[in-house]
Amino acid sequence: GDKGFSIKSAKGDYELQFRGLFQADARFFNGDNLGGNPGRLNDQFLLRRVEPTISGSLGKLVGFQITPQFGGDAPALLDFWGELRFDPAANVRVGRFKQPVGLENLQSSPALTFIERALPTSLVPSRDNGIQLHGQLFSQTLSYAIGVFNGGADAGDAATPDTDNRHDIAARVFAEPFKNSPGILQNLGVGIAATTGNAYGAANTVAIKSNYKSVAQNSFFAYRGTTNANGKHTHLAPQAYWYNNNYGILAEYVISRQELKNGLNERSVSHKAYQVAANYVLTGEDASFKGVKPKSPFKIGGDGWGAFEIAARTSALTLDSDTFIAGGGTSFADPTLAARKATEYGVAANWYLTTNAKIALNYEATRFDGGATALQGTDRQNERAIIARVQLAY
Amino acid sequence: GDKGFSIKSAKGDYELQFRGLFQADARFFNGDNLGGNPGRLNDQFLLRRVEPTISGSLGKLVGFQITPQFGGDAPALLDFWGELRFDPAANVRVGRFKQPVGLENLQSSPALTFIERALPTSLVPSRDNGIQLHGQLFSQTLSYAIGVFNGGADAGDAATPDTDNRHDIAARVFAEPFKNSPGILQNLGVGIAATTGNAYGAANTVAIKSNYKSVAQNSFFAYRGTTNANGKHTHLAPQAYWYNNNYGILAEYVISRQELKNGLNERSVSHKAYQVAANYVLTGEDASFKGVKPKSPFKIGGDGWGAFEIAARTSALTLDSDTFIAGGGTSFADPTLAARKATEYGVAANWYLTTNAKIALNYEATRFDGGATALQGTDRQNERAIIARVQLAY
Amino acid sequence: GDKGFSIKSAKGDYELQFRGLFQADARFFNGDNLGGNPGRLNDQFLLRRVEPTISGSLGKLVGFQITPQFGGDAPALLDFWGELRFDPAANVRVGRFKQPVGLENLQSSPALTFIERALPTSLVPSRDNGIQLHGQLFSQTLSYAIGVFNGGADAGDAATPDTDNRHDIAARVFAEPFKNSPGILQNLGVGIAATTGNAYGAANTVAIKSNYKSVAQNSFFAYRGTTNANGKHTHLAPQAYWYNNNYGILAEYVISRQELKNGLNERSVSHKAYQVAANYVLTGEDASFKGVKPKSPFKIGGDGWGAFEIAARTSALTLDSDTFIAGGGTSFADPTLAARKATEYGVAANWYLTTNAKIALNYEATRFDGGATALQGTDRQNERAIIARVQLAY
Repeated sequence: GDKGFSIKSAKGDYELQFRGLFQADARFFNGDNLGGNPGRLNDQFLLRRVEPTISGSLGKLVGFQITPQFGGDAPALLDFWGELRFDPAANVRVGRFKQPVGLENLQSSPALTFIERALPTSLVPSRDNGIQLHGQLFSQTLSYAIGVFNGGADAGDAATPDTDNRHDIAARVFAEPFKNSPGILQNLGVGIAATTGNAYGAANTVAIKSNYKSVAQNSFFAYRGTTNANGKHTHLAPQAYWYNNNYGILAEYVISRQELKNGLNERSVSHKAYQVAANYVLTGEDASFKGVKPKSPFKIGGDGWGAFEIAARTSALTLDSDTFIAGGGTSFADPTLAARKATEYGVAANWYLTTNAKIALNYEATRFDGGATALQGTDRQNERAIIARVQLAY
Repeated sequence: GDKGFSIKSAKGDYELQFRGLFQADARFFNGDNLGGNPGRLNDQFLLRRVEPTISGSLGKLVGFQITPQFGGDAPALLDFWGELRFDPAANVRVGRFKQPVGLENLQSSPALTFIERALPTSLVPSRDNGIQLHGQLFSQTLSYAIGVFNGGADAGDAATPDTDNRHDIAARVFAEPFKNSPGILQNLGVGIAATTGNAYGAANTVAIKSNYKSVAQNSFFAYRGTTNANGKHTHLAPQAYWYNNNYGILAEYVISRQELKNGLNERSVSHKAYQVAANYVLTGEDASFKGVKPKSPFKIGGDGWGAFEIAARTSALTLDSDTFIAGGGTSFADPTLAARKATEYGVAANWYLTTNAKIALNYEATRFDGGATALQGTDRQNERAIIARVQLAY
Repeated sequence: GDKGFSIKSAKGDYELQFRGLFQADARFFNGDNLGGNPGRLNDQFLLRRVEPTISGSLGKLVGFQITPQFGGDAPALLDFWGELRFDPAANVRVGRFKQPVGLENLQSSPALTFIERALPTSLVPSRDNGIQLHGQLFSQTLSYAIGVFNGGADAGDAATPDTDNRHDIAARVFAEPFKNSPGILQNLGVGIAATTGNAYGAANTVAIKSNYKSVAQNSFFAYRGTTNANGKHTHLAPQAYWYNNNYGILAEYVISRQELKNGLNERSVSHKAYQVAANYVLTGEDASFKGVKPKSPFKIGGDGWGAFEIAARTSALTLDSDTFIAGGGTSFADPTLAARKATEYGVAANWYLTTNAKIALNYEATRFDGGATALQGTDRQNERAIIARVQLAY
């Protein structure tokens, strides 16, 4: 069917599901000279995600998911976990999966309104190896998750193997208080997530993320190679969404605080990011955190045209100003190479041909503060990108 | 069934197919001292291709294919594409797939008559990221494809990510004018393909292929490391096949023209290759571009023995003589290391046990002009290889 | 069902099976200062094995298996083979699979009693590319296998591509003389395996394994980088198991003999290893080489609790003392870095919740002789590890 294929046992309690996600993108940059030949950032066709998933249940107790990533430039490991489902309120998951922190980071890739996630996702940890207890309470109006993980840096999946003996704890609660009461607030969700842990190690290792990327996936900030993680690393992430009929809004805020060291320069820095995004389905289908399902799928000959959606958002990521101060040593980042703030504005038009096929077009403009030499104008050049995507998901 | 396994929705318009290709080879070399310990090219068992494929259709509009490669020395990405099927005459494909150029390169791997493709495949681009319009016209007697791709070098799949802002256009038309008229010419096909694009970059990058390989997969030509792609790169590839009853013939010709630069030495070179191959099915089954299907599959006890086929071919690849001339700078390739011509003769015996299982034995002799020092006799030693394969495909 | 999912053709002779193995481990070390920050070996969560398998039969003649490995730090290639099944007594397998040598190495990963295999597995070759004849004779009381392989080093899967022209021959016979006679000796098995071949090449190459690892996967022995394989490499491996009702015992012995060379120091060394392991199923289920299947699976609410098993074992690996002697040159290994003997003691507790889900807890202590400087006490520090595993297999 339109939500994947499955093989079931006669009694139905053993089930193997095959799902897939395929995203082929084209990126075009304009008005910069930040790239190589012939001068601007690198236009290209790319396979953004090719993720065949095998998931299933082995009786009522056991669930699992295996999702390798074949897109990008080399195969990679995404969600590989098993789960013991003792109760809807108490499931134990082990393996590799997303830490329960960032709201848009936890939204599934095929359901994203924009082609790329906004800047706050750069500040939260993503997939990591660990063990997690999670469930739903109070007639499913409250979700919770708490886990212990190897501990990774901000932005992206944690590398393996883990190279220190430190672990992180992450927890998240998310309430949809009116979930069971039809009305304007039925699809309102509010939550908060936090992590705490210690990390030690040099830049470019699992302990400290060397770079943050713009929405169009170009690095605009990197620590100096001599900067080290040097102690406590915490995150705090309040978050909310509200969907009503054919429109919705999603907002989140993230603080990532980490103790760093470069020579004699030791201090704690707090990086911050936020986003506000709104979407509107022109053809009237329900907007939701799980994506849009067209009422009348596109058919050759014109009986149906699918669903159309428009969206707009803004997000920003601000590096702590202490990042660039050389107190008794060397600064953690070079202000002529690493920007101290990125501010993004994006608009999107989505065409859902069928439940499985989507064509998306985004325009993304990002303004930077800092990140260039005085000769270059002190600010990194604005980035303007047109990104197109064909997405198939089943 | 013998053509793969599938899961279908009740209405049949959603289908997930599982197919697989498995090729285990043994290669033995004889009469050379080109290799390491103990002196000749490296005999070995190898997994040439291990390619499980997931393909399917999501309603009438959407098709897709995902084929990773697990053979070779590391997992790799082969055909990863999605397709919108507006009409048999107009399909839009996006993702990673073969550029529509070389005839034998476009023949599917399990259907090849010989274990390895002939020398012209070294001169054509293969898989690349892009978008393509393709279809069949005039009662399926004319196939066409035209696409825009990141742009890769000759011989083999394009590396990712693409590192320049240049793209290639590739187009191919192939006619089978008598396809719907039973008779001696029914399976005659004639076509031509061409590409054009610009490439800049050093040897060993995506812009310029550093080496061409013999049929037995040993490199006989490489550019100097200082040679750069320096502008336009085009291909022209006329091609044809003719199958009638239990015999067939396949022929193709390729010109690959590319602007190169090494220091002050700038010029355009044209490399050329051709092949002519003929096959004959001893047991009388139809020969075809899609392989041979045995009438009476091999059974323990002797009711059936499968199908037997023999084949012979010759191919050659000639490097432009300008490749070796140092006009005002350094030559593009070192004539004492890189051969200027390879000429291949091959014979094959194939045993199709069942539709799914094939055992193949090839003898391949390749003669080289150039590619050695005067002391070594100026010509690279002949390569003589016996290659055996067990192939399972479903 | 509990043994995987399958798609069959109507007649049943074409079958595609999907199976999976998922092992998420946690490792904790104690009482050493062999590791990095903060001083002891590296605690971590890890995905030990993520192995989705596609296997099947294409008619009665053809079988195949494809098992990639997604656990660990990068995707890898495990069992990729095809097979022609002429007769239960005569099957020809080609591709990549385990050499028929070590007993515990040949036990399937999900059926292991302990989380990690014991030390003898370090001395036997594992997966390699090759061709093998195997089958069962005398009413299945005798299994045999003989194969020709590229030839790899001890301990772990052979790297590809093979870099010498030498091949190895491996053979194994294993008898279960009373297999068809119910009684106390029905599940007694006794066998022997041997290999012979030549290997030339430097340490860290396919020819010579650079390191042997403790049960908790830390390297305790490595050859010097200048040590070369220099000729014949043989293995001899007597082996046996005996299972009766709810208990069992497994024992094996391995001699790995290899000619080495470091400068003028040329000699043959013989490394030896053994293990004895015993297991006891507290809940009364049958113990077997293929694992334990709980009679009353765990159910929420308490109707069943699954099966419980305890086990103990000891194993040791002794390096030839000639390894550390510098006869006319340099010794093959540095005695202050490479231990000359490892002795392991392990205990295990296993909880089989269902046929598919298992939770295991092991304590492993390993004592080393040598492998440290006089200042460090000449012996490498003892290794004490607690290893926990959640395993899902279908």
